[in-house]
Amino acid sequence: MPDIARLSINLATVRERWTMAEALEGCARHGIPAVAPWRDQIAAMGLKAASRRVRELGLKVSGVCRGGMFPAATPEGIAEANADNLRALEEAVELDAACLVLVVGGLPDGSRDLAGARAMVEDGIAALLEQALKAAMPLAIEPLHPMYAADRACVNTMAHALDICDRLGAGVGVACDVYHVWWDPALEAGIRRAGMDRLLAFHICDWLKTTSHLLLDRGMMGDGVIDIPLIRSWVEGEGFDGFHEVEIFSKDNWWKRDPDEVLATCIERHRTVC
Amino acid sequence: MPDIARLSINLATVRERWTMAEALEGCARHGIPAVAPWRDQIAAMGLKAASRRVRELGLKVSGVCRGGMFPAATPEGIAEANADNLRALEEAVELDAACLVLVVGGLPDGSRDLAGARAMVEDGIAALLEQALKAAMPLAIEPLHPMYAADRACVNTMAHALDICDRLGAGVGVACDVYHVWWDPALEAGIRRAGMDRLLAFHICDWLKTTSHLLLDRGMMGDGVIDIPLIRSWVEGEGFDGFHEVEIFSKDNWWKRDPDEVLATCIERHRTVC
Repeated sequence: MPDIARLSINLATVRERWTMAEALEGCARHGIPAVAPWRDQIAAMGLKAASRRVRELGLKVSGVCRGGMFPAATPEGIAEANADNLRALEEAVELDAACLVLVVGGLPDGSRDLAGARAMVEDGIAALLEQALKAAMPLAIEPLHPMYAADRACVNTMAHALDICDRLGAGVGVACDVYHVWWDPALEAGIRRAGMDRLLAFHICDWLKTTSHLLLDRGMMGDGVIDIPLIRSWVEGEGFDGFHEVEIFSKDNWWKRDPDEVLATCIERHRTVC
Repeated sequence: MPDIARLSINLATVRERWTMAEALEGCARHGIPAVAPWRDQIAAMGLKAASRRVRELGLKVSGVCRGGMFPAATPEGIAEANADNLRALEEAVELDAACLVLVVGGLPDGSRDLAGARAMVEDGIAALLEQALKAAMPLAIEPLHPMYAADRACVNTMAHALDICDRLGAGVGVACDVYHVWWDPALEAGIRRAGMDRLLAFHICDWLKTTSHLLLDRGMMGDGVIDIPLIRSWVEGEGFDGFHEVEIFSKDNWWKRDPDEVLATCIERHRTVC
């Protein structure tokens, strides 16, 4: 079972009750070596202050959440998304993140053109890639669960993400979040196809058999049905040696609890069931 | 755009306010040529009475919902599921249904063994197939949306369903429900691979961009983001000439409305946006 040295906390997990500054202190206090902040958290704290505090506390950054959201209904919308992604890249660089996570976006308002949205995603990543390569910041496409295809991410399988990676070349890989991909009968093959060089992040939480909300009812590791050790064995079998990043959106349960209890539970579950 | 002669109503669409008898009358009154009942509706009306009324009204049955739910935690549970599937088969035969739809089941209680559940599904279908072939009743595996992988169906893509069909041979095909598969980048290829002989049912409704409930918030055709004409063109491009079966679970909207209004809306939307 994994050691705390491999644990990272995605700061969404404690976002309802802690500021980013409090969350950084909290993780350091619990001996958790890494974090993954969201951009609104970074903005609220201030990029420079956030970056300074991360370094002072000796924390690593397993990823910045998130770039992406490429498709738009107008050329202006697309240009805006591209500009915003360049800012996300700068933030990831300033924080010395392992990668910039890309949640690629869904269908533009009023559109049913899924193939068109997917083409916009690929164009958007291609546009960002040049700067990302210069900055040596890996871009991690995160395939999201198919239930988010319309509103959040129209890339929903490892295979699709890797098709995009194949076409774009070096500098782009994938983030493997067990919540999004656990159901996929082609997951093991996808992880093998990604290989060490393209496995840029590994996110954990659990799928609750009775899920009450499409976005905000993720489970703590061990409370659901995902065989996390199995998926971890596939990822690490490829040589992945990055962090196991816990990312839990849970409005009626974990977000309501004392964040110190949440972190203690993450540490315990990571050690015992992951 | 399609003609009403191709329309079928899955009776779940009007189940909250009409009995099966009322629903059969209602469909006939609206000039809808086909229906697809659920087994609890059939049981409530009585199989013989239901079958008689369907014939009297000149209705076709585009499918019976549903067989399946194969995985279980114990051998007794599996035997029970197999016995129940034989009863489902008899009902489909008595109703002269175009197929028995299989919602294959998810993980047994307490299990995280997805591969094991999938093996149980295949064993269960194989066990049912012998009788189904004798009765000349096609079995239609319905890949369900991946958000149901844990609790309802661990077969979630056309490709996976067709892998099972390939292994089991004649007598097994697929039900293509746009709600479950619209997001799949491999959908067109899957439909082509299925081919006319294995495309046994085509179900329609819509995915609402803002979906409030994992099970009971399906949209009316035209209210969501699915490009139904595109998917229909793929299915009919293979030669499928069966019904377009409307299946809408919608506890806060369509289930609350007057079923006559619901049927009138189905007819109008089928004609104009499908």
